[in-house]
Amino acid sequence: MLKPVRIGICGLGTVGSGTVNVLARNQRVINARAGSDIIVEQVAARRDNPQVDMTSLNVTRDIFEVAKNPNVDVVVELIGGISVARELILEAINNGKHIVTANKALIAEHGNEIFAAADAKGVTVAFEAAVAGGIPIIKSIREGLSANRIEWLAGIINGTGNFILTEMRDKGRQFDEVLAEAQELGYAEADPTFDVEGIDAAHKLVILASMSFGIPLQFEKVFTEGISKIEPVDVAYADELGYRIKHLGIARRVKDGIELRVHPTLIPEKRQLANVDGVMNAIMVKGDAVGPTMYYGAGAGAEPTASSVIADIVDVARTLTADPEHRVPYLGFQQSSLSDSNILPIDEVDTAYYLRMAALDKPGVLSQVATILSDSGISIEALIQKEADDDEEIVPLILLTNRAVEKDLATAISKIEALSSITGPITRIRLEPLK
Amino acid sequence: MLKPVRIGICGLGTVGSGTVNVLARNQRVINARAGSDIIVEQVAARRDNPQVDMTSLNVTRDIFEVAKNPNVDVVVELIGGISVARELILEAINNGKHIVTANKALIAEHGNEIFAAADAKGVTVAFEAAVAGGIPIIKSIREGLSANRIEWLAGIINGTGNFILTEMRDKGRQFDEVLAEAQELGYAEADPTFDVEGIDAAHKLVILASMSFGIPLQFEKVFTEGISKIEPVDVAYADELGYRIKHLGIARRVKDGIELRVHPTLIPEKRQLANVDGVMNAIMVKGDAVGPTMYYGAGAGAEPTASSVIADIVDVARTLTADPEHRVPYLGFQQSSLSDSNILPIDEVDTAYYLRMAALDKPGVLSQVATILSDSGISIEALIQKEADDDEEIVPLILLTNRAVEKDLATAISKIEALSSITGPITRIRLEPLK
Repeated sequence: MLKPVRIGICGLGTVGSGTVNVLARNQRVINARAGSDIIVEQVAARRDNPQVDMTSLNVTRDIFEVAKNPNVDVVVELIGGISVARELILEAINNGKHIVTANKALIAEHGNEIFAAADAKGVTVAFEAAVAGGIPIIKSIREGLSANRIEWLAGIINGTGNFILTEMRDKGRQFDEVLAEAQELGYAEADPTFDVEGIDAAHKLVILASMSFGIPLQFEKVFTEGISKIEPVDVAYADELGYRIKHLGIARRVKDGIELRVHPTLIPEKRQLANVDGVMNAIMVKGDAVGPTMYYGAGAGAEPTASSVIADIVDVARTLTADPEHRVPYLGFQQSSLSDSNILPIDEVDTAYYLRMAALDKPGVLSQVATILSDSGISIEALIQKEADDDEEIVPLILLTNRAVEKDLATAISKIEALSSITGPITRIRLEPLK
Repeated sequence: MLKPVRIGICGLGTVGSGTVNVLARNQRVINARAGSDIIVEQVAARRDNPQVDMTSLNVTRDIFEVAKNPNVDVVVELIGGISVARELILEAINNGKHIVTANKALIAEHGNEIFAAADAKGVTVAFEAAVAGGIPIIKSIREGLSANRIEWLAGIINGTGNFILTEMRDKGRQFDEVLAEAQELGYAEADPTFDVEGIDAAHKLVILASMSFGIPLQFEKVFTEGISKIEPVDVAYADELGYRIKHLGIARRVKDGIELRVHPTLIPEKRQLANVDGVMNAIMVKGDAVGPTMYYGAGAGAEPTASSVIADIVDVARTLTADPEHRVPYLGFQQSSLSDSNILPIDEVDTAYYLRMAALDKPGVLSQVATILSDSGISIEALIQKEADDDEEIVPLILLTNRAVEKDLATAISKIEALSSITGPITRIRLEPLK
């Protein structure tokens, strides 16, 4: 039996309360796995949380007290946000504490700095809870797939966005209406930008990509497109063509570098990811040896996230007194082995596309469109052309293209939009076969 | 950088050749993760394998030479089978070697003995590749979900069986015919008993259950029922009722102990597991904190299995010179913390059921059947009663029941079969909602 491990928990909101409660409830089984007693030495919280039995806790209102507490071995940062959390973690590292955090924004934007500080002090930083809540996706990629050259990964890594898209599909509802409901249900924040514009997903994608490809964290290079412009009609046409629209974080290794992108994506309805509904998360990871794998579970919530926080605490507890070289490196690769790969700008990414346009109902329009696409090297893989109602002069035209480089498609779209037979802008959604 | 880790690979069949090839192809990325050079010091093979470049390998025909080789740190056992493999591993442990193995039968049947021997010598035994090929399911349960009291797990953990059931459903084919094709394709062994009667799945289930519940390996207590009696008509009726038939390994913690069972199972078509087709594997694991999670990927094959073998080698390499207490315990729980839980005999298991019977086409039969069930405390949840063709006197009657204890259902079935209005034996398939 190893010596007891004393943790200090900073933040007693949703994840903090879940962590305290699960540690208490499952104390016996957790200690039996860890091989040491995990003791909550101190908790820092701005106020008491009615979800937690506070009586047995040593509570402070000052989070920095935890970072300085000589009895604390591991600081568990659950306050969220960037500025104060960064200061807290650097202070704790400086005092020789190990770090467990659920803070995706902080790791994505300041992980390189934090890892360097931890390296210098010989402590570790664990962040399983930062990506996809309770799914052990970081451990799976970082350790479970360590034999592989990862080719790509694609994930539903924002539950709010997936809830909205699921409701739009199942009930034909509008984006705005479902978003309002998600806010009422507490899934979406008052400012939903982080969720629906893909920033939250981009934070998570950067972390997964760094571990997959052995590259430093480069949040500023992720291309991000949200779901606020998806219309029910596109969800319905996608369905008709055998596809679902999901908001995916995609990282892919290609000849000239690495793609990092978050955007709405048509995927074949037979893929496992296509049937991940509501607030659930799932990540597909394709390795050169293992082939496609998928990991599914709750991407948020008090106890699912606490599940990952505590798994990290157990990992840290096991190697607390071991030499740092025996620990798993932060990003799965030895820090000295990280390589700078070119992150492709979105213009150079190639993918397939769904295009919807409004065309005048007269002969030759499809031929004009097909010619413009063909001149850019783009072919049409599938097509829906609806007959006009008797009194309509404008008909929708829906195309799926083969893979093409984004800037070539953009050029073709400009030319098509300039046709007198096409009215209004073209709706374009990327499409990935995920094979 | 740690010192190089020297491995000896015993067995150069499918998995052995995959391991040698992936180690060579991905050498740079694997070493960058491991923090040490992984060197194939020796390979033992009965004969050369044309899939492998043998020229650079130090080959012996005697596997025991590897177990005795003083330059070998880690023995990778990939010969399969039980008797010789057990002897080899015990000899290697006795010589202070760490062990990586893909041998599910050996771990399931002799794991307790092997772990005790390893404990005594301070070496580790890793066996990710023993369950579900390339899916990092052992790592996920053992480490990723360490905060949880696991409530149940259910897995498609035999690719051959799943291929057969998928073909039967998609094409309405007979069991025997698909099995013959699976044998031609090389999915199924010449003696398919291990696959289709559930013994292979039982080996894997025992390992997963021990890690989930912290109990010693108890292969002899698994209830096993195969898929050879599943008929296309049952697959079709299940479909009509909104279910798929899958061959599942199920482990569940209930009030009086633990259920360990492998059998064909109706599951709702909306479950992620229901859409795992062909030779793919997937395991659902429900933890009290994390809720339901699922892990999906290739359950067999040279490189997927090698992916898990090498992940274990990397793990072992990282803690090769660490104190044993810093390593993850074999079953996730400290050996001293394993608890003996009662494994329930199948008679005491409760589950729901699909029942199909042939009834004389006359009034009152359903009422007789319902009364017998009701007298045993079993209610009918769904029903298909087909009208007779004009010239038929016998009609099929299909029922789904609520959950009931197996022995109560058995009693009810005997009584129903004794009715003069019921002809022939009743087909019974268990049903699990997996919620």
